[in-house]
Amino acid sequence: MANYTNMELLRFLLFEVHPVQSLFKYERYSHLDAEQAWMIVESAKLLADQEMFPYLKEMDESPAQYDGKGAVLTHPQIKRIIQLAAEQSWIGGAAKFEHGGMQLPEMIFNAGQHIFQAANNSVQGYLGLSTGSADLITSFGSPEQIATYVPKIYQGEWQGTMALTEPQAGSSLSDILTSAKPVNNDYYLVKGQKIFISGGQHEGADNFVHLTLARIEGAPAGVKGISLFIVPKFRPEPDGTLVYNDVYCAGDFQKMGQKGYATTHLSFGDNDDCRGYLVGEPHQGLKYMFQMMNGARISVGQCAASVAMAAYQASLQYCKERPQGRVPSEKDPLKTPTLIIHHADVQRMLLTQKAITEGSLSLAMECNRLYDLVHATQGDEKATALLLLEILTPIVKTYASEQGSRSAALAIQTLGGYGFTTDFPVQQLYRDLKIMSLYEGTTGIQSLDLLGRKVTIQNGKALSLLLIQIQETITLSNQYEDLKLYGIKLNKDIQTFEKVLNHLLGYLQKSDPDRFLSDATVFMEMAGLIVIGWQWLKMALKAKELLQSVNPNKMTQDFYAGKIHTMEFYFKYELPHIDACANTLMNEKTLTNLKELDFF
Amino acid sequence: MANYTNMELLRFLLFEVHPVQSLFKYERYSHLDAEQAWMIVESAKLLADQEMFPYLKEMDESPAQYDGKGAVLTHPQIKRIIQLAAEQSWIGGAAKFEHGGMQLPEMIFNAGQHIFQAANNSVQGYLGLSTGSADLITSFGSPEQIATYVPKIYQGEWQGTMALTEPQAGSSLSDILTSAKPVNNDYYLVKGQKIFISGGQHEGADNFVHLTLARIEGAPAGVKGISLFIVPKFRPEPDGTLVYNDVYCAGDFQKMGQKGYATTHLSFGDNDDCRGYLVGEPHQGLKYMFQMMNGARISVGQCAASVAMAAYQASLQYCKERPQGRVPSEKDPLKTPTLIIHHADVQRMLLTQKAITEGSLSLAMECNRLYDLVHATQGDEKATALLLLEILTPIVKTYASEQGSRSAALAIQTLGGYGFTTDFPVQQLYRDLKIMSLYEGTTGIQSLDLLGRKVTIQNGKALSLLLIQIQETITLSNQYEDLKLYGIKLNKDIQTFEKVLNHLLGYLQKSDPDRFLSDATVFMEMAGLIVIGWQWLKMALKAKELLQSVNPNKMTQDFYAGKIHTMEFYFKYELPHIDACANTLMNEKTLTNLKELDFF
Repeated sequence: MANYTNMELLRFLLFEVHPVQSLFKYERYSHLDAEQAWMIVESAKLLADQEMFPYLKEMDESPAQYDGKGAVLTHPQIKRIIQLAAEQSWIGGAAKFEHGGMQLPEMIFNAGQHIFQAANNSVQGYLGLSTGSADLITSFGSPEQIATYVPKIYQGEWQGTMALTEPQAGSSLSDILTSAKPVNNDYYLVKGQKIFISGGQHEGADNFVHLTLARIEGAPAGVKGISLFIVPKFRPEPDGTLVYNDVYCAGDFQKMGQKGYATTHLSFGDNDDCRGYLVGEPHQGLKYMFQMMNGARISVGQCAASVAMAAYQASLQYCKERPQGRVPSEKDPLKTPTLIIHHADVQRMLLTQKAITEGSLSLAMECNRLYDLVHATQGDEKATALLLLEILTPIVKTYASEQGSRSAALAIQTLGGYGFTTDFPVQQLYRDLKIMSLYEGTTGIQSLDLLGRKVTIQNGKALSLLLIQIQETITLSNQYEDLKLYGIKLNKDIQTFEKVLNHLLGYLQKSDPDRFLSDATVFMEMAGLIVIGWQWLKMALKAKELLQSVNPNKMTQDFYAGKIHTMEFYFKYELPHIDACANTLMNEKTLTNLKELDFF
Repeated sequence: MANYTNMELLRFLLFEVHPVQSLFKYERYSHLDAEQAWMIVESAKLLADQEMFPYLKEMDESPAQYDGKGAVLTHPQIKRIIQLAAEQSWIGGAAKFEHGGMQLPEMIFNAGQHIFQAANNSVQGYLGLSTGSADLITSFGSPEQIATYVPKIYQGEWQGTMALTEPQAGSSLSDILTSAKPVNNDYYLVKGQKIFISGGQHEGADNFVHLTLARIEGAPAGVKGISLFIVPKFRPEPDGTLVYNDVYCAGDFQKMGQKGYATTHLSFGDNDDCRGYLVGEPHQGLKYMFQMMNGARISVGQCAASVAMAAYQASLQYCKERPQGRVPSEKDPLKTPTLIIHHADVQRMLLTQKAITEGSLSLAMECNRLYDLVHATQGDEKATALLLLEILTPIVKTYASEQGSRSAALAIQTLGGYGFTTDFPVQQLYRDLKIMSLYEGTTGIQSLDLLGRKVTIQNGKALSLLLIQIQETITLSNQYEDLKLYGIKLNKDIQTFEKVLNHLLGYLQKSDPDRFLSDATVFMEMAGLIVIGWQWLKMALKAKELLQSVNPNKMTQDFYAGKIHTMEFYFKYELPHIDACANTLMNEKTLTNLKELDFF
């Protein structure tokens, strides 16, 4: 079978770079040890090998499709995977024991999800949505709501979804119109249209639990008037029977990629009999939803890293097997052609992919670890982890999706014309990946979030904490002569970053928020480059330590040497673009904040 | 109807930036005037509006497909378009009168092709291949060969193709195995397999003229032993009848994009009855083929620019019509949402697309004009034009295809989730575009050609000539206070470029061609940035001149202002990446020229 991820890398990230075993001292995770944890991850690989990866192409060729009568037809394997994954705790595994989970750290749970995402990103979508929905209900729902919905979702019988987007509002949630009218202090009658609802009413589940944003009649305008409701497709009556709840799937969207994943249009309350059950307090819906949204953003970033990883693995395998051409110094046409991995430009393309995919996955693991610390700790430790998580969330989402697309394009490129044909998976992965920069807030939205909110919260505390973390890695790298230079380089880049940020904050001080934010996406690009540089220095440092402290065999030595080499590659080929971004951001000329647009 | 290109831009490029009318003084083009020339371009728009653009989506949804019996089924409109285009001289229009053409400048002919490429890139492929094949026969074939094949191709009855690639050789043409055995000094018996043959035996033409590379028995190894043959599907007998020539279409390739364009696998001589007719001298085939190949490379570059242009136009239209959200300084949720074109990040995405697509198209027109000078002039003037064309060919091909993909990704991004759905054309254009970095030599191959061949030919003469051209534009820009700064910036970048080149040439002097060429693709990126910077300065300069010299109406004023604005944008947002490339290229650490690859 073709590789779609690298288990040795995953083990290195989990146990060396972001040591999951250091979490086992916390009560929440004290039931685990490293061996167990790794066995759980390996079980995910087995499931993905047998049940997910073999269906990657089939699901692309037979897209999920609306049946014209209120449901979306999906590949039969999807129902099977949801059931198998549920049985093996890949929906509810990270939940607490009391909610039916295995209390797994997100690191372990999401290492499994990474394998699924790399094997078949369409099917993992269904699982991830259910996990997030159940978490949200657990966090903010009533005990009755939890008891009614969460077990069914974790058992894979009911599918959870996020119902946010409306046709007229798109990314602008403050403009949503779906309404909720209270009835007898008991429930609300919900009415409205939601689009782009992933995992919406399809064949693979018996019921759907739509976590729906709507406005209670008379609510304030804007985001302050949004409430969160549980709106099932079939509502459970007190006697346990299920009654159709007037949530109609009115159509679907056909897409250029991720075709196995149903994307639906839902119509709530066409017959005025759609009941929604308020979660938590009125008008707090967006705040609640952001718990799920933040998790989803990290998950999208990790998924982008995973899909790009699958493309990289396919590309690498091809380059090791395909003979073609000769290196420039070899002029004799009678010499046997070389394997293409010996061409310098092919090595450049492979190393670029390796730098992007492994760097992104490492950052996703950093986020998963912070999530675990938020769950397991209290007080300052928890607050620190939360702030770090908040600032890293838009970065991992954006770097992995934007650079992941570039990485998958290079995977196609290494295969030449074959890469463009449906005979190889790289073109599908390139198509699948493109959605990642749009899901859960586009790159533009993430960038506004980073610069406009995360960088400034608590007087810049999140950013300070992040820079402290990076400095710690730099300080540790100083002990190795050959890593020291890279630490110095990264430190210089951080100074550039801070200079640029101060420059931009100047616009805010001049009360010009529009200008402050107008190049937020370029600022994001810079932040991504730095944070991934940090991850690479961290990986190289750990590899260096292990090369010296243990006595690894040749294969493991090569693995560690590859980490140091790829770090050097990243610093040589990628990091210099920070200065280009800085140059743009320091340029005071305003070219994109225009009122007068007739020239377009 | 949706816009897919901008006729005002095309007119500006043709008559102002790269004045086609200055060609009319040469005998070859003396029959034309500007008004006629523009009418011809406008007729292409009419044809594309009526017969090409309306079928863009249909051809994506019903791909060209092998029938299992030796032919590829294509959309019925393809045959019709080939016939209509032939009638209106869009296959042979640039040929001399004596060969049945209209002796149009490439600039005018390819302005028409640009419109077709933007409207429906699959169908334009068939036309372009026929044009190139007939040109090649005209240049190097015997009078009999010309008389037999060229008129049929220009009449759209026979389809020309390029049959180069073989399964085992890919980009490495020195390894092709197709053989040709001479028979009675009359013809050759051809035997071999060719893959990725675009426009190969499909339903849209009655016969096929495959320009085929093969080795005559006993030929030297490598590229020096390759000859060029005309191999028709049906060979014309002296009495005018057509006899099946044992060229069998053995299958096709299904692709992620450009699905309307048949990509075939041809098998020559399965029954030992495939006759090939030698073109020109034996063993000179690759040299001849490069005439067609160079034309095809410029055409692929122009096609990439055109497809990205169509995506930009769709994106622009959406951004002008879609209301969503509010600018950061507007906090009142009761205010009507703004059109998204008012968001700074959307403006950034539109301007990036505008800079890439218009810049690339301008460079393609620069190349078309040089082609015309090669055709129309003699002596030094011709030699200069040819050298400039040679150095610009890999650059236009690569910049337009690589950056065009990035541009189309931004087109998707501006549409948000809608951009990923098949309801909008941007996702198709993104998929179609990906082939352009692979066609006719991948980006890696183009980069080796630029640095390894074009930069060094005649002691660097081609590059010197190019830099003189750029300097002329810089000097002219000095007369305008507000353009002067940009000229200075570009000049500084050229100095950086030269410094980097000297550094790289040092490896060559140290007899290390592998290291010299190992970062050729990064060098290409730098060259592309500079050359497009030059095109933008040229456009801005012309716009400035016209703003001052004529008295344009508001619309035209806006158009010219847009050129200056986009130049400024390009210089602020894109050009700084030159320094990043330079930084990488000046870094002496060798990270991609490795023999020891176990770490992958």
